Amino acid sequence: MENNGAKIEEGGVSSKNKIDYDKLIDQFGCQRLDQSFVDRVFRLTGRSPHIFLRRNVFFPHRDLNEVLDAYERGDKFYLYTGRGLSSEALHLGHLIPFMFTKYLQEAFKVPLVIQLTDDEKCMWKNLTVEESKRLARENAKDIIACGFDVSRTFIFSDFDYVGGAFYENMVRVAKCVTYNKAVPSFPSSFPHLFSGNDKLCCLIPCAIDQDPYFRMTRDVAPRLGYKKPALIESSFFPALQGVSGKMNAGDPNSAIYVTDSPKEIKNKVNKYAFSGGQDSVENHRKYGANLEVDIPFKYLSFFLEDDEELEHIRKEYGSGRMLTGEVKKKLIWWKDTVQQGQRLLMRWSMRSWQLDHFQICSTESAGS
Amino acid sequence: MENNGAKIEEGGVSSKNKIDYDKLIDQFGCQRLDQSFVDRVFRLTGRSPHIFLRRNVFFPHRDLNEVLDAYERGDKFYLYTGRGLSSEALHLGHLIPFMFTKYLQEAFKVPLVIQLTDDEKCMWKNLTVEESKRLARENAKDIIACGFDVSRTFIFSDFDYVGGAFYENMVRVAKCVTYNKAVPSFPSSFPHLFSGNDKLCCLIPCAIDQDPYFRMTRDVAPRLGYKKPALIESSFFPALQGVSGKMNAGDPNSAIYVTDSPKEIKNKVNKYAFSGGQDSVENHRKYGANLEVDIPFKYLSFFLEDDEELEHIRKEYGSGRMLTGEVKKKLIWWKDTVQQGQRLLMRWSMRSWQLDHFQICSTESAGS
Repeated sequence: MENNGAKIEEGGVSSKNKIDYDKLIDQFGCQRLDQSFVDRVFRLTGRSPHIFLRRNVFFPHRDLNEVLDAYERGDKFYLYTGRGLSSEALHLGHLIPFMFTKYLQEAFKVPLVIQLTDDEKCMWKNLTVEESKRLARENAKDIIACGFDVSRTFIFSDFDYVGGAFYENMVRVAKCVTYNKAVPSFPSSFPHLFSGNDKLCCLIPCAIDQDPYFRMTRDVAPRLGYKKPALIESSFFPALQGVSGKMNAGDPNSAIYVTDSPKEIKNKVNKYAFSGGQDSVENHRKYGANLEVDIPFKYLSFFLEDDEELEHIRKEYGSGRMLTGEVKKKLIWWKDTVQQGQRLLMRWSMRSWQLDHFQICSTESAGS
Repeated sequence: MENNGAKIEEGGVSSKNKIDYDKLIDQFGCQRLDQSFVDRVFRLTGRSPHIFLRRNVFFPHRDLNEVLDAYERGDKFYLYTGRGLSSEALHLGHLIPFMFTKYLQEAFKVPLVIQLTDDEKCMWKNLTVEESKRLARENAKDIIACGFDVSRTFIFSDFDYVGGAFYENMVRVAKCVTYNKAVPSFPSSFPHLFSGNDKLCCLIPCAIDQDPYFRMTRDVAPRLGYKKPALIESSFFPALQGVSGKMNAGDPNSAIYVTDSPKEIKNKVNKYAFSGGQDSVENHRKYGANLEVDIPFKYLSFFLEDDEELEHIRKEYGSGRMLTGEVKKKLIWWKDTVQQGQRLLMRWSMRSWQLDHFQICSTESAGS
């Protein structure tokens, strides 16, 4: 699909120009989140809206209003998200749906299923079953480190969980389309979680490039007598090299991984992060930075919690009073303190027994 | 594949002429069983060779000598056979591999796995998951009625059993070929039966039209570090309408089903069984019956235990002294007494609890 010279494909986007999201939403036929929705979430949950909502990181959706209508009537829903295991560790772009999903789980107090498609990885890449399963466990550590509610989360790898009711739904779906990520969208795939609750709504937070997949799921659902899953979709998270680049698991310098050391992060940001600043200090002071293409500013706008501080950087850097080096330093500092300090410490202190405990607990008690 | 004007396809054969099995064995690249093999089985097991061996019903094979070599050294092997669930009940042609497999299990005292591919049935035919699973249970009753050793038999439907180690092998195989009947050929697919015994030989009794499938399995096996399964293959069992017809689940008159009543069998044999007798009694007395195309005689040669009686019919009918009506009567009598009297009584007295008991027992104790 073409959009302003950008190619939107399953699994990613590559673009020379800025992506026209309005056009994309029209092309895909999604709906757009507006302020009244953000206010409604605040009213229903009593929690201040996540920065990804405030800053329009997640803004296209499908049927989200129906989920909220049901919730307001007292009906629960469940969340489904997952990982395709494209790398040993997660990078910042991968974290976006998980961070947002964690917020949704906390705000609405609903069950969550997380699928790790180690079977697809094994099937389509040159990996053994054992290596794919190992990758799934490694990725699960990073995902758990996002801080999900153990009592409401079921993390499964396809190799571990496919069988029984889940396999029956796989075959049902395969009769309609040759695509299997549809299965976790249907509560009957998880009899130990949602037994007798086959009409439970499913909400899927995902990146907008996943929309074509889940549109298929939504097409298939009524033919199987199942409810269509609702979607809430994020905008693209750019590569370090700029909005025209694609984060590529084969190129470790295209993304910041949660396993990168502070030194590596500093080096990557300083060396590779595409700058929207001008080519000389004189020009920069005169014209200001181009914030549309500046990667350090983009990254900060995704992750820096403090709205006022972000606004300050936007004004100062955009007008040329602040230089690229200062913004990069801010990003390195954020990564260094927040991410390295908290997330990575959690990750490395998490040993296998803890991972097992998480999965077992989740299997047994996520049905509440 | 063409053979003497016959088309050999996966799942069956249609022919205007007699099939040239020598040519077929050359085309497929199988080996041929000879008398020394039959003698060897007798020597190893102390049991008289099954009529399907004596009468060359099973005669092409692959690597059977290796299995017997291993057996002679004291190594076990296991048997794998299965059903594609093409009909509500089994017909006589379906019984052939099961009757032969039962004999092999008894003679060699080895474990047996029986796969019911209800998932494929559901996928490729217009059937629901529930209907496919019901068909699998119905077919299991007929299969169990063949008299397998409960303590050495594991019957499973794909919908019930796919998962875990079996699913891992499904994905491993799918990376090599888009075909899944290979999985039960590998002992590692059944950790509850063959744990720690990954080099166990597998022997597959099947009809010769299955050879192309299992040739693929044998091609794939070394790439996965697995042992190739050995095969022993039967000739085709003809339709009632004659050797040029194909037994067709859509046409109930093309085959005798184990659920047919004595009256239905009598009617089918008299009305539809293709006769090799001549068009008038005078010509019949003069030229004798053409035994190559006579269906009642063919059926009796598959199933009538008594070699002397069969030889008597061959001479009398072939020379024209015996008439078609007498041979048909003999077939109806055989079906009526042996099959209706024993097999069907067993089938109808078998209720669900018994089926469950069989499967559970088998799962727990077939590893010996």
